[in-house]
Amino acid sequence: MKRKSLSRKAAVVGVGISSFGAFPDKAGRDLFVEAFQDMKVDKGFNPKDIEALYLGNFSGDIFEGQAHLAPIMADSIGILPCPATRVEDACASGGVALREGLMAIASGMYDMVLVGGVERMTALPTAQVTDALGIAADALYEVPMGYTFPGLYATMATAYMERYGMKPEDLMQVAIKNYENGALNPKAQFQSSLESIMMSKIKAAQSKGKPVPGWQNVMDFLHDNSANPIISWPLRLFDCSPISDGAAVLLLVSEEIAHEFTDHPIFVVGSGQASGLPLYSRPDLTTLPAAQKASQIAYQMAGVKPQDIHLAEVHDCFTIAELIAIEDLGLCPVGKSVEFLKNGIFHRNGTIPVNSSGGLKAKGHPVGASGVAQVYEIFRQLRGEAGTRQIQGTLSLGLTHNVGATGTTCVVHIFERK
Amino acid sequence: MKRKSLSRKAAVVGVGISSFGAFPDKAGRDLFVEAFQDMKVDKGFNPKDIEALYLGNFSGDIFEGQAHLAPIMADSIGILPCPATRVEDACASGGVALREGLMAIASGMYDMVLVGGVERMTALPTAQVTDALGIAADALYEVPMGYTFPGLYATMATAYMERYGMKPEDLMQVAIKNYENGALNPKAQFQSSLESIMMSKIKAAQSKGKPVPGWQNVMDFLHDNSANPIISWPLRLFDCSPISDGAAVLLLVSEEIAHEFTDHPIFVVGSGQASGLPLYSRPDLTTLPAAQKASQIAYQMAGVKPQDIHLAEVHDCFTIAELIAIEDLGLCPVGKSVEFLKNGIFHRNGTIPVNSSGGLKAKGHPVGASGVAQVYEIFRQLRGEAGTRQIQGTLSLGLTHNVGATGTTCVVHIFERK
Repeated sequence: MKRKSLSRKAAVVGVGISSFGAFPDKAGRDLFVEAFQDMKVDKGFNPKDIEALYLGNFSGDIFEGQAHLAPIMADSIGILPCPATRVEDACASGGVALREGLMAIASGMYDMVLVGGVERMTALPTAQVTDALGIAADALYEVPMGYTFPGLYATMATAYMERYGMKPEDLMQVAIKNYENGALNPKAQFQSSLESIMMSKIKAAQSKGKPVPGWQNVMDFLHDNSANPIISWPLRLFDCSPISDGAAVLLLVSEEIAHEFTDHPIFVVGSGQASGLPLYSRPDLTTLPAAQKASQIAYQMAGVKPQDIHLAEVHDCFTIAELIAIEDLGLCPVGKSVEFLKNGIFHRNGTIPVNSSGGLKAKGHPVGASGVAQVYEIFRQLRGEAGTRQIQGTLSLGLTHNVGATGTTCVVHIFERK
Repeated sequence: MKRKSLSRKAAVVGVGISSFGAFPDKAGRDLFVEAFQDMKVDKGFNPKDIEALYLGNFSGDIFEGQAHLAPIMADSIGILPCPATRVEDACASGGVALREGLMAIASGMYDMVLVGGVERMTALPTAQVTDALGIAADALYEVPMGYTFPGLYATMATAYMERYGMKPEDLMQVAIKNYENGALNPKAQFQSSLESIMMSKIKAAQSKGKPVPGWQNVMDFLHDNSANPIISWPLRLFDCSPISDGAAVLLLVSEEIAHEFTDHPIFVVGSGQASGLPLYSRPDLTTLPAAQKASQIAYQMAGVKPQDIHLAEVHDCFTIAELIAIEDLGLCPVGKSVEFLKNGIFHRNGTIPVNSSGGLKAKGHPVGASGVAQVYEIFRQLRGEAGTRQIQGTLSLGLTHNVGATGTTCVVHIFERK
């Protein structure tokens, strides 16, 4: 591994996010404007001072018949003629856009860059969305075999079960935690715990005079094939992130000027990106080598170790993905993520809260926006601005972990409140 | 305009290109491997030393059902786990990928970056390709009006005719020049002058005993509606760049190490990128403000003026685009490009040869690759390696001009042989 770093640092001084959910009447630009308008910077900023836009987007082409999104977004928020560049690495597009912004500032070319992500997905039928997402996998060797992403991640889940003795119900613990977190996030697509969802279904049945489901607890509910159908065994509906519309932005400035915008900038102290083999040719299905590599690079740049991290937003596109992410990042020993999860380590009041935002699972997963939305959460938490979901105790180091496809791209960033 | 520059320079030390043409049986990765294998570096290089890939691509999603192309290309040439990032700004994707590579090296993160571009377009029916390209325009305000790109550029052409008195046959002079250049380029999609194409059609008619067309010269041929049909008036078939498959790559390294690879590196001394309004909301249809802006930034960074440029590759997606490009770049006074063209200024043996490669018009236009392929030509010409199309005389400064859509993105680079 090369030992390199950026020649100057950058800090996040503001973040914004749209509501995540199903808004099929909104165009991508509407979502982006909503996120941009949501961004408040403590000491203010002039949009005209933005020198470049890096935009994460997976496929406006297919989802809304609009390619070349970046200059359209720049126009929609009034920052022309600034350079606007779309970055695409599947569901890691947002995280990679941040990395491009970091390098652009370090290069000396810019001092203020807007990094954004947007995806408008729900206007198409679900099957078409699943197929469109599927082409982030290998179109010659995976897609023709009938694989879409639930199948690819189910393959990883069964391999993990076989190796480490995990049970399908262990996966449900990830969903339960992330829905509980999402219930506290006013921008999340799902703002209810799974227990609340279960109770509301029971009440709905009662009020309509229909047979009342006999669920005694949330695990009964999650094992009910009609309430939580199998999508690709062992993954059920509530193991899968939803199809979502949404956008997020962050304002990145060079270290030298960060305090002109806020007394509490969040510095980006580590950045790592790596590519990996597609799943079909990967020797080990229970880890994402690119995530390990990307995190090693990021930790090294930041000069920190996994045990120094106070909170993380990881790419839980499926429940199994969160467990593997936690291990790839070194937040627990390999094969032990289920045990640590059950011990509450990753819960909001645990030692290393993971996905306090609700994660992709509950907050929603507008794919090009997700990597930027992860930074939104870390920024809010590190600054003590996360409202009812604020994590208590000392928080100075946060991490984001953003994955494209089955880990053919991974990008990890580390953030510090100094 | 901000006065900024890169904190360290980079140089191109090798270039490679696939054949451009119609290869519907090849996947994008096949074209990319062909381009990579074509790249020879004077003193050699180890592909394992490549630290990042920036890939220009417009829409693998639609054209070949393969998104997330960058890590697949990295895998195909054996450079995993290096970070691989797709950059998309419509037909400017390749030029913008170069700019990202430049900034990445200047940032201190990398010393050796592979910049590539690829597009595999001909497997789809022409109408579907035209529609797919069309969504680089504004999908809310232009596409629903029935506009595709021939119509958008025809709109610019008629505005230019109205303002400057240009005739449709003046546009044909651009095509004649670029086909003559393409005839000398062994990688070009069309390796014949328009006169040769005319003669071969006459011979074909004669040999089949069909009525022989009565063309006396190439202008007769180009005015024949059956030989050169109107696509969108005043643009005819030979005013439009073709649909193409192809790929191109370049190896970019930091200034400090450039001489480890070659005694004749080509330094990238200027880089400018800007965004512009879509055509529907632009007050003046006879110029691309983003191209003017991008070139001003690039000239300033390089410390040179338009009259210092020895040769240029400009984005002639349509013949009118070349004329406007020449003016936006300051290579001749506004409204005078036709006059200068007719005087031979932009011909291969003129004062400022433009599109010595054949341009998008004759070389072909695999859209994501075009911006990188332009650099291929400049590199070869500045190093005196352009074979039968080598421009004579002193050549030390070359320029590339790459456009996305109708100029919503423009990116200009200036190259120097020192």
